[in-house]
Amino acid sequence: MDLRTPKGTHDYGPRECYLLNRFLRAVTEVFETHGAACIDTPTFELRELLCNKYGDESRLIFDLADQGGDICSLRYDLTVSFARFLAKHRVQRLKRFQIGKVFRRDQPSVSKGRLREFVQCDLDIAGAYMEMVADAEAICIMSECLDRVGHRYQIRISSRKILNALMEHSGIGRNNFATVCSTIDKMDRLPWADIAAELRTKGLVDGQVAVLKRYVCVSGGIEVIDTLRSGELYLYSDGKKGIDDLALLFKYLGIYGVGDRAVVDLSLARGLDYYTGVIFEAALVDFKDVGSVAGGGRYDNLVSSVLGKKSEWSVPCVGFSLGVTRILSVMLKVDRRRTTETEVFVGSSGGLLLEERMGVLSRLWRAGVAAETFYTRKYGYASLMEHVRKTDIPFFLLVGEKEIAENRFRLMYGEDRALQMYGDIDTIVNFIKSHRAGQRPPAGL
Amino acid sequence: MDLRTPKGTHDYGPRECYLLNRFLRAVTEVFETHGAACIDTPTFELRELLCNKYGDESRLIFDLADQGGDICSLRYDLTVSFARFLAKHRVQRLKRFQIGKVFRRDQPSVSKGRLREFVQCDLDIAGAYMEMVADAEAICIMSECLDRVGHRYQIRISSRKILNALMEHSGIGRNNFATVCSTIDKMDRLPWADIAAELRTKGLVDGQVAVLKRYVCVSGGIEVIDTLRSGELYLYSDGKKGIDDLALLFKYLGIYGVGDRAVVDLSLARGLDYYTGVIFEAALVDFKDVGSVAGGGRYDNLVSSVLGKKSEWSVPCVGFSLGVTRILSVMLKVDRRRTTETEVFVGSSGGLLLEERMGVLSRLWRAGVAAETFYTRKYGYASLMEHVRKTDIPFFLLVGEKEIAENRFRLMYGEDRALQMYGDIDTIVNFIKSHRAGQRPPAGL
Repeated sequence: MDLRTPKGTHDYGPRECYLLNRFLRAVTEVFETHGAACIDTPTFELRELLCNKYGDESRLIFDLADQGGDICSLRYDLTVSFARFLAKHRVQRLKRFQIGKVFRRDQPSVSKGRLREFVQCDLDIAGAYMEMVADAEAICIMSECLDRVGHRYQIRISSRKILNALMEHSGIGRNNFATVCSTIDKMDRLPWADIAAELRTKGLVDGQVAVLKRYVCVSGGIEVIDTLRSGELYLYSDGKKGIDDLALLFKYLGIYGVGDRAVVDLSLARGLDYYTGVIFEAALVDFKDVGSVAGGGRYDNLVSSVLGKKSEWSVPCVGFSLGVTRILSVMLKVDRRRTTETEVFVGSSGGLLLEERMGVLSRLWRAGVAAETFYTRKYGYASLMEHVRKTDIPFFLLVGEKEIAENRFRLMYGEDRALQMYGDIDTIVNFIKSHRAGQRPPAGL
Repeated sequence: MDLRTPKGTHDYGPRECYLLNRFLRAVTEVFETHGAACIDTPTFELRELLCNKYGDESRLIFDLADQGGDICSLRYDLTVSFARFLAKHRVQRLKRFQIGKVFRRDQPSVSKGRLREFVQCDLDIAGAYMEMVADAEAICIMSECLDRVGHRYQIRISSRKILNALMEHSGIGRNNFATVCSTIDKMDRLPWADIAAELRTKGLVDGQVAVLKRYVCVSGGIEVIDTLRSGELYLYSDGKKGIDDLALLFKYLGIYGVGDRAVVDLSLARGLDYYTGVIFEAALVDFKDVGSVAGGGRYDNLVSSVLGKKSEWSVPCVGFSLGVTRILSVMLKVDRRRTTETEVFVGSSGGLLLEERMGVLSRLWRAGVAAETFYTRKYGYASLMEHVRKTDIPFFLLVGEKEIAENRFRLMYGEDRALQMYGDIDTIVNFIKSHRAGQRPPAGL
């Protein structure tokens, strides 16, 4: 039998899931601290919903076979399903998060962390609110999520409105907007000469390329916004709106204490068609080759487009996706041996003592202490200790005839489990709990 | 545009997800306390893996369209994927849990909680261990998971080996085993007369029906095992093994303190083909109509069957699935208004005070207090208080010009938020944290 997983998919083993679950738990905590609600939508949707949402990328959609009944496809992202959810249930306001698998029939690349099935973790704020308030909180939440990764990061921020003004100013038509953006989006990987050459093959003349260059190289802190305000783009209505938006956004980011992690960067374009306002993307400073690990933006027209063109009902939204698979790949670079939350391994000395060990386990479990033992008939102190060290279980509890008779057990801990303490089970439980803060990995990871 | 979800699937809104997440978090904690590792496998598998695993039910498998490349189907359960995982990675021992969506093209029934997409939550212990030790821990873990549901439950336990002996004793051939089991499985829903009639239509003669009746009505505590030991089935080798297994199992369940929730019940048959030893199933005593909410058993040959018939490599397993969707349906019967973890709603008095509220929010978030505010331009004390009461947010913090100037805020809490306290943000944070145990729903739910 062929035991492989389908092309572009893979199994996540205990070590990967251990890190993944800790990360997802940490970000869920962040979302909940912001009062976000969780929703869940089906893994597959009616195919017609997904049509005309992803431009060129539509060819990457996985279809279900026609077995009679609904014609369906696997979801490509969580955003379109969220828009359908809002439209179907006529929800006007919702700060929601959703964590789930999405599917893309892309050419898989292990080195680039590009798979056909991967986890998306989205937070979006739907509703008509005061300018930039939801945008600022979305970026604040994204920043707090990235804090849990434990590596330095930078958030680049731009606005589709400013890009619109730039296209207008350069005389680049609406039809070329997407393709020009996709070239500009490569600026973090390619030198300007290559970018310029690609733009010329797309029909831009030298003057247009020069104008683009002047702006897409604009990058920096709040001071950049002042420069933009005195520049040419501010004369266009979209440009004025986009620049004023950024000014207000950075003011709010300052209040939320995340302004120092954010920069204005007009080379940021973001691929998807549906963005209408602020766009943003984050990368890890020390892991640039991994690419962006989170990104999002404002999309004010997606919900009404899901309802159909003539709908007057619309829900403006702003939100982001965390690139969970990429973040996991960075976490896996840091060596961690742990695969479970086990705190205590219960061993025996001088006999198998199975039922005695089961009794001790039962008391540990009931006290909320994560514990395991061995279930084989063979055992040996050395091999048990080897297992404890290899899997980095912090405590090793020894059960022997004497320990049972005296109700006094030996607990080994610390470096190489060379430190010892003795006590009854209650004493040992308290000792383990008091050592948790120091022994367990930090809450974030 | 058609906004519905595909037939047999549905959206889970904030209230459902709130309960679902709390439950899944609680059972994950149970799994981790037992030292279980988590794995994750793809949502779809190569179609050939799923063939010939589910008998008649194979027709319920969802296929992916042939878009070139691998021929795949959506997984039908997590167990076959787990067996493939063990075989592919040549894992000999693993206590693992997995939570994920599974898919069945069944006739959906909202009233029976039968959907085409639903969450499965599995724990399995793979490996060759001493008799009944892993079986006992699996049932112990299942029991601890059900403790978190907060309703009384009973675990019925039987053994495929005893059923084998019963079939042999009744002269019912191997070929009829599955179909006879499926009739016996209806005993909790139908009177014996109907069961007997159905058995006769399946070709059983009166004598056989009488023998079956004598045994499948056997149900009770440990004393039943003694009766079985002195009965006819104990004379068959499978019968002796199965009955001795149950005796040892109940001894271990006693050590784990879950014996009082378990009964021997020979009417339990379980549908799936792959079970080879102990089988068990749990139902909520006060919600019998919901059906079984958890079930599992020992399957010693599935991993080798995944590898192919001639394989000498085999991994015996025992485990269970929690019926998460059914458990959720019971939880939803209990009225709960909460949809988020929000602890504090930050309101304003005497003005919009947006930036001041953002500053307060930022401090609450950083202190780990779940908080939200309003982002609209319009507001009114009465409508804010109405929102706080309706969504059951325990604390209401008021920000006004005076409060800001004096750094002394008003916190309303308790029934109808009629109690008050005053203090700076640090004092308020400490007050909220000290009230958590009382205000928040219990950890389990």
